[in-house]
Amino acid sequence: LAAGDIPVVESLIEPLHPADVADLIEHLEPEQRKLFLDITRHALEAETISHLDEALREEVVDQMAPAELAEVVTELDTDDAVDLLEDLDADTQQQVLDSLPAEDRAYLEQGLTFPEDSAGRLMQRELVAISDQWNVGETVDYLRNAEDLPDDFYDLYIVDADKKPVGSVPLSRAMRSKRDIKLTDVMDEELRLVPVDTDQEAVAYLFRQYGLVSAPVVDGDGRLIGVITVDDVVRVIDEEAEEDLLNIVGVSDTDFHAPAYKTAFLRVRWLVVTLVNTLIASFVISRFEGTIGHYPALAVLMPITAAMGGNAGVQVITVTVRALATRDITPNSNVMRLISKELAVGLMNAVVFAIILGAVGGYWFGHIGLGFVLGGAMIFNMVWAGFAGTVIPLVMDRIGLDPATGAGPFLTTTTDCLGFFAFLGLATLFLT
Amino acid sequence: LAAGDIPVVESLIEPLHPADVADLIEHLEPEQRKLFLDITRHALEAETISHLDEALREEVVDQMAPAELAEVVTELDTDDAVDLLEDLDADTQQQVLDSLPAEDRAYLEQGLTFPEDSAGRLMQRELVAISDQWNVGETVDYLRNAEDLPDDFYDLYIVDADKKPVGSVPLSRAMRSKRDIKLTDVMDEELRLVPVDTDQEAVAYLFRQYGLVSAPVVDGDGRLIGVITVDDVVRVIDEEAEEDLLNIVGVSDTDFHAPAYKTAFLRVRWLVVTLVNTLIASFVISRFEGTIGHYPALAVLMPITAAMGGNAGVQVITVTVRALATRDITPNSNVMRLISKELAVGLMNAVVFAIILGAVGGYWFGHIGLGFVLGGAMIFNMVWAGFAGTVIPLVMDRIGLDPATGAGPFLTTTTDCLGFFAFLGLATLFLT
Repeated sequence: LAAGDIPVVESLIEPLHPADVADLIEHLEPEQRKLFLDITRHALEAETISHLDEALREEVVDQMAPAELAEVVTELDTDDAVDLLEDLDADTQQQVLDSLPAEDRAYLEQGLTFPEDSAGRLMQRELVAISDQWNVGETVDYLRNAEDLPDDFYDLYIVDADKKPVGSVPLSRAMRSKRDIKLTDVMDEELRLVPVDTDQEAVAYLFRQYGLVSAPVVDGDGRLIGVITVDDVVRVIDEEAEEDLLNIVGVSDTDFHAPAYKTAFLRVRWLVVTLVNTLIASFVISRFEGTIGHYPALAVLMPITAAMGGNAGVQVITVTVRALATRDITPNSNVMRLISKELAVGLMNAVVFAIILGAVGGYWFGHIGLGFVLGGAMIFNMVWAGFAGTVIPLVMDRIGLDPATGAGPFLTTTTDCLGFFAFLGLATLFLT
Repeated sequence: LAAGDIPVVESLIEPLHPADVADLIEHLEPEQRKLFLDITRHALEAETISHLDEALREEVVDQMAPAELAEVVTELDTDDAVDLLEDLDADTQQQVLDSLPAEDRAYLEQGLTFPEDSAGRLMQRELVAISDQWNVGETVDYLRNAEDLPDDFYDLYIVDADKKPVGSVPLSRAMRSKRDIKLTDVMDEELRLVPVDTDQEAVAYLFRQYGLVSAPVVDGDGRLIGVITVDDVVRVIDEEAEEDLLNIVGVSDTDFHAPAYKTAFLRVRWLVVTLVNTLIASFVISRFEGTIGHYPALAVLMPITAAMGGNAGVQVITVTVRALATRDITPNSNVMRLISKELAVGLMNAVVFAIILGAVGGYWFGHIGLGFVLGGAMIFNMVWAGFAGTVIPLVMDRIGLDPATGAGPFLTTTTDCLGFFAFLGLATLFLT
């Protein structure tokens, strides 16, 4: 396919949606990709480039001249254009900005000043603001003749003389109303306004909670300056869920498309944490070397308590982290209920497994005392897992740390150490 | 608050959005919740009930009489109504259905026949179908006068005489077109049709990939029978992400709101897997009891190799599972590239940690041979983790199993066993 025949390749790509072309590019081997881009560069739509995965987008953009980039930026909505500009080095960025018309440039320069992951980055500046004096007929006439409107829009925002939004009318309702009806008579006054510095996670929450399709963004003075549409929010929701998932195991979201040496480096941090964790556990075990020398059977059974406590704790942590993210837990309402529930869950499962394991351990090594030690250590560690699995993420959240990232390894360290300590300690007390 | 004064409670709830009232109910203690529902039952909006978490919705619905339920069902869109009906026992369900008008009943009965998690469950039957003969003016007049339209809609679907969709027009475009323009002249012909039995994950993919706001659902004959809107898809995306996250650690998505004994029971399955896993590992260790008896130091260092391999493997699995879910990996394109990359990543990190750990182990116990054994076992296990972490989920996906659920525990079993076996085996060979 990508072996020379330019017109054929172009004709194959032409009917595809930009998002699919972007996927196609992502799936190519690095050398094929370079060839493909050389061939199709001029035929690629701006949209395709903005759909590329971040690591690849940088690669593609680096190969383009400032004039080409300026053209791409002009075609994109402001939110996508800012995303693209942000990745450029300062020089190229300035060159691209200089070659744009003044109004576009001002919007984009302002866009770059908003913090990453804020509403200001998600919004597009192209919007439909309707005067609160107009009726449906005047609005329709305006929409039919105006030039600078976004491609798609779903709500009309009604603004007063100061450009402050006073209400919104879903397009479907506007369309069903007669021409002489005033928009202020059919608008929803309860607006979900988004201040421009709102975190994107909070924006996603608003859309999800209230089933919104678009939301107005306002500046510090309450003036309407942009609109966030649901397609951008879908991307955010997806990203946030991915981040939660990947952070729990210490993987970054650029992991998949990064080259091997970079991926290896990115994952090291979490492996170092694992290493420190197991070294601490090893230290705990080393305190009992004498006991193990007498009873090598302890070394055989020792991983069980630690593993069961660790896994039970990771279950509790995952549920707690997720409940914090979806606001199913709020600091003042149901924290005590959650902790006591998890203690109960931990105790119930601990007793069940203590009996099973105690029996297995006692029978395997023909030593009833060993069974009791194993069962006792198990109860101890699993109840601790239930308690620590809720309290660690809650405390981290309260003091402003991200529980999705750090809670897991921290908890596992405690359950490992406690698991080994309880088992070997009980064994030392009762078996020697 | 919820201590008797009915009018006050009602006046406090009245201005809230149904989704917020549902959250409020979820946050109450069980006894308070019962009281709250007794007081407000008649004031609760149908929407509030459909926003409740599944476990709680069943609780609330169980307390309602069939007549009340019928009223609630009538107010809801068909997709939410079917969700609610599905939870009822067969008797009540029939009573509710019997008290509905014939057309509604037919829709709902059909809705119940679609498999859970299919497009048929997500769609609403209320839709806007426009004849391909009409112009913009006729369409607007129809919309102004028709009664049975959905509350909100975003696209007009153009259908031919057989009710087969031939194109769509975003509302914003229809609104900007002059009255005498034919809809077929401005419609997008490239429709993303959703067959009614499509899995909801595939529906979510369509919306995300193409930034859709609504999509037409067709039956086996290609006739338009419903519409899926983006707010339902946002819920699906959220649910799927949550499922992925929770399944990896063996937790169900009803975990948080379920009572303790149920939660304990739901989590047991994964703990049993952990138990079997560690018992297999214990068996491996037990083969080396003699060696450990001579060198108790081995018991101290033994958990390190297993833990590092396990954690490195879980990182690889998470990335692979996620890449499968987002279709960043497809069976025929880049599997070999991924495997060789992960082998390289595993090897690089293995060498780094083998050197560090070999030094630590050798120095700690003053035995250089022990350091080499530890380092060698580490390289072995981490390279295996890179290989198995990609291959296990890929194979599971190919043979139709869900890699998010089973791959983690399965991999950990192999890294545990291999970690202990490599370390203790090398030690037996070289140190005794």
